[in-house]
Amino acid sequence: MLPEKMLALGKKRSAIREIFEYGKKRAKEIGADKVFDFSIGNPNVPAPACVKEAMLDLVNNEDAVLLHSYTSAPGITEVREKIAEYINARFGTKFTADHLYMTSGASSGLMICAKAMLLPGEEVITFAPYFSEYRVYMESAGGKLVVLPADLKHFQIDTEAFEAAVNKNTKAVIINSPNNPSGAIYSAETITKLSDILRRKEKEFGHTIYIIADEPYRELVYDDIEVPFIPNFYNNTVVCYSYSKSLSLPGERIGYIAVSPDMDEWQEMYAAICGAGRACGYVCASSFFQLLVAKCVDKISDISIYKKNRDILYDGLVKLGYTCVHPDGAFYLFVKALEPDSNAFCEQAKKHEILLVAGDEFGCPGYVRISYCVRTDQIENSLSAFAALAEDYK
Amino acid sequence: MLPEKMLALGKKRSAIREIFEYGKKRAKEIGADKVFDFSIGNPNVPAPACVKEAMLDLVNNEDAVLLHSYTSAPGITEVREKIAEYINARFGTKFTADHLYMTSGASSGLMICAKAMLLPGEEVITFAPYFSEYRVYMESAGGKLVVLPADLKHFQIDTEAFEAAVNKNTKAVIINSPNNPSGAIYSAETITKLSDILRRKEKEFGHTIYIIADEPYRELVYDDIEVPFIPNFYNNTVVCYSYSKSLSLPGERIGYIAVSPDMDEWQEMYAAICGAGRACGYVCASSFFQLLVAKCVDKISDISIYKKNRDILYDGLVKLGYTCVHPDGAFYLFVKALEPDSNAFCEQAKKHEILLVAGDEFGCPGYVRISYCVRTDQIENSLSAFAALAEDYK
Repeated sequence: MLPEKMLALGKKRSAIREIFEYGKKRAKEIGADKVFDFSIGNPNVPAPACVKEAMLDLVNNEDAVLLHSYTSAPGITEVREKIAEYINARFGTKFTADHLYMTSGASSGLMICAKAMLLPGEEVITFAPYFSEYRVYMESAGGKLVVLPADLKHFQIDTEAFEAAVNKNTKAVIINSPNNPSGAIYSAETITKLSDILRRKEKEFGHTIYIIADEPYRELVYDDIEVPFIPNFYNNTVVCYSYSKSLSLPGERIGYIAVSPDMDEWQEMYAAICGAGRACGYVCASSFFQLLVAKCVDKISDISIYKKNRDILYDGLVKLGYTCVHPDGAFYLFVKALEPDSNAFCEQAKKHEILLVAGDEFGCPGYVRISYCVRTDQIENSLSAFAALAEDYK
Repeated sequence: MLPEKMLALGKKRSAIREIFEYGKKRAKEIGADKVFDFSIGNPNVPAPACVKEAMLDLVNNEDAVLLHSYTSAPGITEVREKIAEYINARFGTKFTADHLYMTSGASSGLMICAKAMLLPGEEVITFAPYFSEYRVYMESAGGKLVVLPADLKHFQIDTEAFEAAVNKNTKAVIINSPNNPSGAIYSAETITKLSDILRRKEKEFGHTIYIIADEPYRELVYDDIEVPFIPNFYNNTVVCYSYSKSLSLPGERIGYIAVSPDMDEWQEMYAAICGAGRACGYVCASSFFQLLVAKCVDKISDISIYKKNRDILYDGLVKLGYTCVHPDGAFYLFVKALEPDSNAFCEQAKKHEILLVAGDEFGCPGYVRISYCVRTDQIENSLSAFAALAEDYK
């Protein structure tokens, strides 16, 4: 009598959660230092100092009624202005408060965008490896997610396959760069090619095709590599941003949707986003955390820790003979499994107390994801276990 | 090319917001003290002291990573345990953490419940006067909201009309008590009658019919009147609770869904709720505010201020000849308009700088809502304007 789809979604725990729960159980059995849990993308670097300062300042100096009041549904105007100014200074754009809609993290942003855009049966294209919850959001909004196979050479985008896949039902494309789980950053060249194709296809089919840029990892970039800012390449872009990783606030659910000022009829899109927010049961993003991010708009957590972890892990595994995608951003390492069945490989890894997520979860079988947002000593201590795991396959 | 429904929802500001914005503009023109803005239900009583204490304690003494981590989607187990214990001690029930799902306020709770329950075309009954966003949530989940006319005598429920309205498509009933906008509390007698009818109808139609108890105003009750706890009357109940009003945290979006332990197959409902949360783009309720409410679970804001406001306003208006529903709870007074068209009456009130919301907004034309969660001097000063307004109709 209850909707099958909701029951299925509620009962089927994500593979990542499953492993994470196993890890907690196993840690109790043999000790946390003996379990190399690389399953979950929970930042282990604390929020930067400005977050604590801002929290104390708000609690001690703001009027309690104002601090915790309902905000307008799109968010506090001054907060949105501050974020728009920051984006503009950084990317040379012309966002205003009117282009920004504060959300409960990037997930709610994605869900709202899907609901704001999709008519029944319309398609949204994304590229493996991809975050599997995209399917839930697109289908929940009545659309269909089309996943294109991974570009296993460079973990960029196979633009020929993409061009062939765009059709009259294509309403949007989701791009996630820096990418979860590969850590790859789509280059300016990739984004340019993609944008050119989309512009051609918009003309061919006579309707707008949107890019949804899912950007929770934008600030987690190493070696001074630049992440192309999609609205500067393609007008019909909405950015779904989150402070989960940049300020290490994943549990607080704070982020925004930014509608490109250069979008065709951006006011219509913004109105649809406001409507979709209501239809998702959102009232406003947390007033307290809106005010907080406005105070920390240009700060990020100490990502040198992630970089150190990445270097130790990447160098260590390559030395052991593993084939790894070189991650320029995010906090994941995507590694080729040592047998074709990556689930079987994960099971084998478990015997060495290494907990990985199979690439199948991300539409990319044959690989596994390692989340390196963990203590550096866990990475150092895990290398001998990874060595033993490699031995199993010799 | 964008969904008409989302555009319509986004463009049509709620009547309440419209008046609220007018009030802000008018305050700039003639001074805030000259505008009697009774439009919006934003608590004006600050959060109780424990909220500030808990915030400082969390910021100063909790590990920053743990404090802001992702929680499991249903919420932190210890938080849910603490809330369950509190509910049980108060109402003699047997809730556990497994029956509770933390939400971003009651609105998200209602949306999730709708999505967890409704199959396409199924009906949800509610009673005027009612919170108009119910329609958005039920329709967004593919259902249909059926509004039964108000019981204008007692502002309870016309149980005969209700019995006639329940049919084979009825999946749920939404009850909001203390009621927004009438301030009425449904009596134990009303709830008993309603429950008896539902049990009969469940048998007659051979399927479960749920009560969704929307309870943001549960703690805002005056004169020691008791609010019946619906799960003690009817097994197939989910409660949507919010700390928005009880702790004066409306902007922080924190609340929970409580599935009755006595519900038929409550585990199935809980699973569907977990699935619906995912399908709404929720990841978890704010970690920080989950921990906070657990520390303040038995506290409420100083509601003596609302009671004082209510008494001055109710007595004052009755003395001036207005017909008012006596509000036992919430912070609204529902007053009969002095002409049949309550929108016209609101316009007339505007001429005296009194800002009211027409009952039409709540499915109850002929009445107006006064939100008395305002400064007491605004109420005192408004009485002469209400007198002049009454004069206009003599």
